[in-house]
Amino acid sequence: MSLILYERVGHEGRRPSPFSWRIRYALRHKGVAVDYVPMRFADVETVRRLSGQHMVPVLVDGDRVVHDSWNIAVHLEERFPDRPPLFGNEAARGMARFITVWADTALAPLMRRLIYADFVWCLDAGDRAYFRQSRERELGMTLEEACADRATAMASFRRAMGPLERTLAGQAFLGGAAPTYADYAVFSFFQWARLGSPGEILSEDSAVHAWRARMIGLFDGLGDLFAGYPAPQDAAAAR
Amino acid sequence: MSLILYERVGHEGRRPSPFSWRIRYALRHKGVAVDYVPMRFADVETVRRLSGQHMVPVLVDGDRVVHDSWNIAVHLEERFPDRPPLFGNEAARGMARFITVWADTALAPLMRRLIYADFVWCLDAGDRAYFRQSRERELGMTLEEACADRATAMASFRRAMGPLERTLAGQAFLGGAAPTYADYAVFSFFQWARLGSPGEILSEDSAVHAWRARMIGLFDGLGDLFAGYPAPQDAAAAR
Repeated sequence: MSLILYERVGHEGRRPSPFSWRIRYALRHKGVAVDYVPMRFADVETVRRLSGQHMVPVLVDGDRVVHDSWNIAVHLEERFPDRPPLFGNEAARGMARFITVWADTALAPLMRRLIYADFVWCLDAGDRAYFRQSRERELGMTLEEACADRATAMASFRRAMGPLERTLAGQAFLGGAAPTYADYAVFSFFQWARLGSPGEILSEDSAVHAWRARMIGLFDGLGDLFAGYPAPQDAAAAR
Repeated sequence: MSLILYERVGHEGRRPSPFSWRIRYALRHKGVAVDYVPMRFADVETVRRLSGQHMVPVLVDGDRVVHDSWNIAVHLEERFPDRPPLFGNEAARGMARFITVWADTALAPLMRRLIYADFVWCLDAGDRAYFRQSRERELGMTLEEACADRATAMASFRRAMGPLERTLAGQAFLGGAAPTYADYAVFSFFQWARLGSPGEILSEDSAVHAWRARMIGLFDGLGDLFAGYPAPQDAAAAR
């Protein structure tokens, strides 16, 4: 029986969710076939009935319903031990956990200040009001206000990204010569930023820029499987 | 032939260097015997003749002279492949590199603001003037000025430590159930802080506090092998 992944869908079939991207990469890494079921924010009741909580991605694997992208990755590793390892050993899994938490809590919050004013427009039209309301409550300001001072936001982001830049200046991937789950987890936010905003957040001469290009190219160009940020005319029409 | 590690020695035989601590732990992890040779900052010419640069630790392994703690760890892993792994596989080594760089560049600089005014007094008396001069030039202010606003420094440090706290709330070590090199690299700065300052930088109820205690206790209490911060009367005498 094939696996099913419920994941966020955006404007005209776009895939804006970082948490889905890390699992998409993990599934290709494992070489596991999966059916993708697109979910809008508005489909929250379907997700809740399925998994007892409201967030995607959710993986359905026979009787097992797994939510939270980290739990899904761990499930895939345990369920398919003979496929290429996402972690490799216990120590590597422990460290991948740290790097994932670092990306989630030290990197992504700063990226919001660079992309959120644009990001709302790559969502499904029916999801934009919910996104705006929930995120603006969380931020305590409008999406536009959150992104108003790009120079300061960019400086904070570059500083936070320092350990990534230095590490990738000396090795091709976080996993060394080849990518593993930590690469997918961190990359997923760069994918979120490039699909969710027309602005470039990386210098062309940075090691992270080169790594991002390698990540996009993996698995027959998986990073380019869906449309990018809506072109100006689409975004204007969407507004 | 036994290995030799040249490492920094402080006031009355203390061992204040974080970069030596990570290698001391790595050597015990590997179960490799080593002779330690204490070096003061003032012994810089000896270090330079030995290794072509001025920083310790330096490992001498027969004909090989290895400097930089990361290079020493990689050397130990390759030289003693049949001993317990410091990394375990290529992916784990790649991730340990990221975590080490994170500790060196995102965590340690903030810890200086909490300990430097005290730290100078745990060094050998002959090294204090050099330390003060070189660090004050780097900081652009006196050691005391760097540590004047403890509340702000503590808030920045706690924020930077966030990913560590969250990770260790869910697993015993960065390496999962058992420590590996990433644990030694990050712990080395907490060791630096506790041996280099009488001030406590962790809350007793934090996951990092509990992890630090586990780390101190490893290898028959290796973290307590040397004297701690000089007692008030010693510090006063030293001044």
